[in-house]
Amino acid sequence: MQTGLYAGPVIRAWSYRDGVAGHEDVPTDRLADAIEPKEALLWVDCVDATPAELDLLTTQLQISHIAAEDLHQGGQRTKLEHYREHFHVAVHDCTLVADSLFTREIDIVFGNGWLLSVRQPSDNPDDPTPFGLDSVVRRFEVERTTEQAEDEGFLVWAFLDVIVDRYFDVADRFDDRLDDVEEIVFSTTKGDDIPKEVFDLRRGMVHFRRAVAPLREVLAALLRREAECLGEAAIVHLQDVYDHVLRVTDWIETQRDLLTGLLEADLAVVSNRMNQVMKRMTSWGAILLGSTLIAGIYGMNFESMPELSWAFGYPAAIGSMLLLTIVLYTWFKRRDWL
Amino acid sequence: MQTGLYAGPVIRAWSYRDGVAGHEDVPTDRLADAIEPKEALLWVDCVDATPAELDLLTTQLQISHIAAEDLHQGGQRTKLEHYREHFHVAVHDCTLVADSLFTREIDIVFGNGWLLSVRQPSDNPDDPTPFGLDSVVRRFEVERTTEQAEDEGFLVWAFLDVIVDRYFDVADRFDDRLDDVEEIVFSTTKGDDIPKEVFDLRRGMVHFRRAVAPLREVLAALLRREAECLGEAAIVHLQDVYDHVLRVTDWIETQRDLLTGLLEADLAVVSNRMNQVMKRMTSWGAILLGSTLIAGIYGMNFESMPELSWAFGYPAAIGSMLLLTIVLYTWFKRRDWL
Amino acid sequence: MQTGLYAGPVIRAWSYRDGVAGHEDVPTDRLADAIEPKEALLWVDCVDATPAELDLLTTQLQISHIAAEDLHQGGQRTKLEHYREHFHVAVHDCTLVADSLFTREIDIVFGNGWLLSVRQPSDNPDDPTPFGLDSVVRRFEVERTTEQAEDEGFLVWAFLDVIVDRYFDVADRFDDRLDDVEEIVFSTTKGDDIPKEVFDLRRGMVHFRRAVAPLREVLAALLRREAECLGEAAIVHLQDVYDHVLRVTDWIETQRDLLTGLLEADLAVVSNRMNQVMKRMTSWGAILLGSTLIAGIYGMNFESMPELSWAFGYPAAIGSMLLLTIVLYTWFKRRDWL
Amino acid sequence: MQTGLYAGPVIRAWSYRDGVAGHEDVPTDRLADAIEPKEALLWVDCVDATPAELDLLTTQLQISHIAAEDLHQGGQRTKLEHYREHFHVAVHDCTLVADSLFTREIDIVFGNGWLLSVRQPSDNPDDPTPFGLDSVVRRFEVERTTEQAEDEGFLVWAFLDVIVDRYFDVADRFDDRLDDVEEIVFSTTKGDDIPKEVFDLRRGMVHFRRAVAPLREVLAALLRREAECLGEAAIVHLQDVYDHVLRVTDWIETQRDLLTGLLEADLAVVSNRMNQVMKRMTSWGAILLGSTLIAGIYGMNFESMPELSWAFGYPAAIGSMLLLTIVLYTWFKRRDWL
Amino acid sequence: MQTGLYAGPVIRAWSYRDGVAGHEDVPTDRLADAIEPKEALLWVDCVDATPAELDLLTTQLQISHIAAEDLHQGGQRTKLEHYREHFHVAVHDCTLVADSLFTREIDIVFGNGWLLSVRQPSDNPDDPTPFGLDSVVRRFEVERTTEQAEDEGFLVWAFLDVIVDRYFDVADRFDDRLDDVEEIVFSTTKGDDIPKEVFDLRRGMVHFRRAVAPLREVLAALLRREAECLGEAAIVHLQDVYDHVLRVTDWIETQRDLLTGLLEADLAVVSNRMNQVMKRMTSWGAILLGSTLIAGIYGMNFESMPELSWAFGYPAAIGSMLLLTIVLYTWFKRRDWL
Repeated sequence: MQTGLYAGPVIRAWSYRDGVAGHEDVPTDRLADAIEPKEALLWVDCVDATPAELDLLTTQLQISHIAAEDLHQGGQRTKLEHYREHFHVAVHDCTLVADSLFTREIDIVFGNGWLLSVRQPSDNPDDPTPFGLDSVVRRFEVERTTEQAEDEGFLVWAFLDVIVDRYFDVADRFDDRLDDVEEIVFSTTKGDDIPKEVFDLRRGMVHFRRAVAPLREVLAALLRREAECLGEAAIVHLQDVYDHVLRVTDWIETQRDLLTGLLEADLAVVSNRMNQVMKRMTSWGAILLGSTLIAGIYGMNFESMPELSWAFGYPAAIGSMLLLTIVLYTWFKRRDWL
Repeated sequence: MQTGLYAGPVIRAWSYRDGVAGHEDVPTDRLADAIEPKEALLWVDCVDATPAELDLLTTQLQISHIAAEDLHQGGQRTKLEHYREHFHVAVHDCTLVADSLFTREIDIVFGNGWLLSVRQPSDNPDDPTPFGLDSVVRRFEVERTTEQAEDEGFLVWAFLDVIVDRYFDVADRFDDRLDDVEEIVFSTTKGDDIPKEVFDLRRGMVHFRRAVAPLREVLAALLRREAECLGEAAIVHLQDVYDHVLRVTDWIETQRDLLTGLLEADLAVVSNRMNQVMKRMTSWGAILLGSTLIAGIYGMNFESMPELSWAFGYPAAIGSMLLLTIVLYTWFKRRDWL
Repeated sequence: MQTGLYAGPVIRAWSYRDGVAGHEDVPTDRLADAIEPKEALLWVDCVDATPAELDLLTTQLQISHIAAEDLHQGGQRTKLEHYREHFHVAVHDCTLVADSLFTREIDIVFGNGWLLSVRQPSDNPDDPTPFGLDSVVRRFEVERTTEQAEDEGFLVWAFLDVIVDRYFDVADRFDDRLDDVEEIVFSTTKGDDIPKEVFDLRRGMVHFRRAVAPLREVLAALLRREAECLGEAAIVHLQDVYDHVLRVTDWIETQRDLLTGLLEADLAVVSNRMNQVMKRMTSWGAILLGSTLIAGIYGMNFESMPELSWAFGYPAAIGSMLLLTIVLYTWFKRRDWL
Repeated sequence: MQTGLYAGPVIRAWSYRDGVAGHEDVPTDRLADAIEPKEALLWVDCVDATPAELDLLTTQLQISHIAAEDLHQGGQRTKLEHYREHFHVAVHDCTLVADSLFTREIDIVFGNGWLLSVRQPSDNPDDPTPFGLDSVVRRFEVERTTEQAEDEGFLVWAFLDVIVDRYFDVADRFDDRLDDVEEIVFSTTKGDDIPKEVFDLRRGMVHFRRAVAPLREVLAALLRREAECLGEAAIVHLQDVYDHVLRVTDWIETQRDLLTGLLEADLAVVSNRMNQVMKRMTSWGAILLGSTLIAGIYGMNFESMPELSWAFGYPAAIGSMLLLTIVLYTWFKRRDWL
Repeated sequence: MQTGLYAGPVIRAWSYRDGVAGHEDVPTDRLADAIEPKEALLWVDCVDATPAELDLLTTQLQISHIAAEDLHQGGQRTKLEHYREHFHVAVHDCTLVADSLFTREIDIVFGNGWLLSVRQPSDNPDDPTPFGLDSVVRRFEVERTTEQAEDEGFLVWAFLDVIVDRYFDVADRFDDRLDDVEEIVFSTTKGDDIPKEVFDLRRGMVHFRRAVAPLREVLAALLRREAECLGEAAIVHLQDVYDHVLRVTDWIETQRDLLTGLLEADLAVVSNRMNQVMKRMTSWGAILLGSTLIAGIYGMNFESMPELSWAFGYPAAIGSMLLLTIVLYTWFKRRDWL
């Protein structure tokens, strides 16, 4: 319902009380108070905030100044960082639009009873597929009711689950692109831009893999309960996400393997084609040069060339050219040179 | 004997009593009761069940809702998942029909005294080689009598043993296909579609490997007794399956290695052939152009060309062409250019 | 402000007293005394020192004679060496100028309360981008005030942080070069020196990687608190540097992967182009030889060639040549050979 | 001395008494008794035994039915399997005859005081280099006397030592084959079947490696004293075998590396040759076509071509053709095109 | 000073007394006595000893018969072997002379208070760069005085240090060879034997790596104090050697990487050249065939060809040929085909 709400530069703070459906708004300058009552979960989300606003948030939430700097700069690797009182998870949301991979860094800082999500701008200014908060909200609110658990672990799970689900879409699109390339490689009327397409695909996969692979370790660390504030139920849910991440990385490996195979196959196809072209060139060259030689012979100016005065000399010459053509053509055809 | 019985969408529940040969049918709505008496093993098998039927089964067997969701969706990786009271093993049965690999996911959920096997539909609608339950039943009933053990471990073993046996058939067929490709690569009348065949084979192997390889870890986990409800005798049997899986993965590695070798050999063969073609083209070109040059010389219109008025001028010209042809032909032949 | 101060062969010793801003100079022949008062940090920096001067320093600071030899010789790997009373960190500062990687070894020896930094000469005599000490001083003095900690850990951090920041510049420039090469590879008017450029780039990356990769282990060892004289606050700062090093190594891997991809793409592009050239050669050859054959036929000297005496014989011959050209041209064009 | 004795389908049982030289025959139906007296070592060897005979043996020696099945089927991986009362070592003896690798599985089952060796048939019916038991007997009897130890460990050692010694012969022959291939690759009169030979070699190496590599782990397990019935002296001897296996695997790796290098070198050589061929084709084409053009010019029928009536016109034309040939020939020669 | 002394087949035994400079000779048949006084270090060195002499040595020094056999045979891998009372280190000294790698096995057996060094013959009979003992003696005697330690650890160190120093020379020469190859690959007048040179270089590197790499583990084992008779001061010295070995292996990896890059670059260069050659062939072919066609046209025998009777017909024909040549030449030049 709130699709439009989360777009654009906004800071939003909500408090979820135990056993109470829905959430209450919290003024962003009173976050420090909102952390205190431990029976509620405080969720602050911001996108495109100004440095000053971000400073305000991190100060109120008592976030370590090193983590705060990371939030300001962006450009983090996918990682889990442990600070004294809180954790910082950096992940990258990915989408693939027409061979271009768009990635958006999302920084999630959470402590006992609160979570701050900072959505960094996309690496591409005109990103057609921004990350929407709706599905995170929906997933969290449903699961919160089902499991009757309020902790920030479910919010972490909701974020990661949505992001990983989008990875599957990306992998799916890569599969489509691979099919396209495969079709072109083995088609007979193949164009010349295969290498470019293969390289673009490869680059996309390399960057995608770089975003996805470290998430395994982040999740493994969470599953090892390194962030002790996450509840048991949230851990079980994260196990499911971990399994999905394993599937995606598996999938990417398979795709990279197939792409390498495609490029090798393409080289072999091109070699075969060149061989074909050369055989044709040789065959036609032999046919044409053979006939030219016959014509050349009867173009010689010797005084005594009996054939020249024969009545059927000319047709015979033409005939022998035709004969040569037919014989050579059949011969090359039989040997599969033509 | 019961070949036809297990085909089509059916749910079937059997109870095996200790020391009693054969099994009794259990109504599918009274499974909850059948779990209780621990002196019997309850085996529920379903294929193509409706979501509602599946819900009924998972509810009665008290299967965790996350595992239940996996059973509904299918598309799992080969894995062993540990829930509080039961285990979930997802494996993939594979067959290779005319270069196409068909895989069918089989989900096995088991707890103390019961086992639920869910056979997911094949990844290809018109699968000519479905997974038959007969051999599983036969193997289980024989071993149950031999070892006088009733536990679900033997059922798990029976499933995995049948599936891994089928892997050997697949690897065998891959070997046949490799032999075919090898023969074509090194034959002198080689066709042009090698790259396509090699790529198809490679794709098949990549997918096959992806299905088989994780089974090692699943079995290693079972052998480490992670599923403590499996009896000692079943573990010894699973060790045998583990050994088979190692052999298959070994085999696949060897095949992949050979396939890479074949592709490289093919590139070298094609290069050699092209070299041959070019040498021939050069040789024949030189022969034909040489004769044409002679013809051209005597086609010049100079007034004083003494040879033109010689009586044997024409035969001499033809003769010199023949001589040139013979000399060049012999020369090129000796240097292996023709 | 002190840009010029640190260039050229100098030895410089400064003492930082706890809680006192700025530093005091220490005569280089009284270093042994300056180590004693533990409430101050002694920092000695030297560049291009004579062997005798270096001997004086190492004797006064009681540096192990094996470490001292390393300082004399230079040419160390990136490493952390543990001696009884002090540690030796060897790192390499890198810059990339016009495809040439310049590396400068920096040896940092530190013990409890003192640090000696020896900047070895660059591996290239006319290095346009020397390592400046200014940024190290600035970073250290700022952080020292902020964190109110005086230990040598912050100096180690300041050095590593500056060096790793410069790594990012190098990686950035490699990205630029990759973009350049990619553009040339896929441009239609591609030059011939791609392989040379790719190889130079590869060499640069290999050497860069060799400088950067071992730094991970050096930092991991420091983070495991192998050098127990480093304070807790410095460790937290080094964690940040560690994260940066991971990012850079990740980045290099990606770049190497892309470079390999580019080279493969280049081979495929060249193969495709050769195919194109051969098709054109065949097409034009067929057209020209066909017309030549027609001319040759009417150049034969048979007595009875009716066409020769036709009034429109000549234009007809020329016309048939044109027709042949047009037909073949269209045909080849349609099949994408021309 | 007993060369012929061990060939053909035989079962043979010998008992070695402590401190007594030589052995006594044991009737194959009284093996169960012969195991008992622990002061003797019972060695049963069989080759090509019928299933019934094998059953008799395994029953008397109380071999686990899973191990017994493995002995019946053959086709095992190189492995060490631990059963309750005995161990099963499967190894593969290899020989290389004219590029074909022959492998023979040898199954060694041993317990405290007895050892059963089952020599499976070769993977190739007409195997010219069967595995002879003589050297095993000789080695065992010598070492038994030297070390004054009777345990089955020395028999295991004798088998493995003989087999691994034969591996060195195989590796030696691979080296010879590599040298042959290398010579052909870099010879100037190189044949066309390099790719086939390289591929055959590669296949041989892949299969050889597959037989040898797992032996490392088998021996490492024995050296870790997993089979506690092996005596200390036998372990020291096995350490030597382990070292040999490491050397062979090292060697194979080197050979594979060199083979890959050879194939790449071959591709480069072929490319270079093709370049040469094309340069020659171009050079000769230019020379011949140039002369043909001159002949064509003087074959034109213009009325006023002054050269035609010159007395030395004809020799001048021929002379200009010769000149053109010489000039072009020298030019191409100088540029290394011819 | 003693350069000539150590060449040729000699056995030499020296005793170093604690605190006494220089050494005393020990008769080779009284070694057993010389081991006893623990305050002296006995060093026996032999080269090209007869089997009988070697037997005498190993008996007196009570060397295990397995180790003794290794000394007799030679051909060991680089390794550290632990026997009850002594250790056996096998290393390989390497030198590179004109692309040929010479390796010489050196076996060092040492126990508490004694060391036996056996220098095996080179793998190549006419080895121009034998291993001289002088530098070992010098290094040992200097360090022995400096550190005032007499134990065999310093002798082990002296051997390894000299050998590893020679590795750097080899790596240096490989670098020179790589530079040579690189220059040829990218030179315009490139010869044809690149693949052979690259392959030879590769083989040298493979064998070099095989000699060097296992030394890391040998040294790591010594540093873990597996040979407890080595003193603390020797361990510190060996750490330095270990660091050198790491540098050399690093260096080899870099060189292998660059060599692979060079071969790939060479393939790309050759492809590019072939493309160039084909473009030229096509261009010149079109020019020559075009002119030949014009000549052919005016060589036709039609009765009414008005141009033939024009006064300026002949020059016009020649002119049109020249025009065609100039136009095509310019066109091809502009498109970079010529």
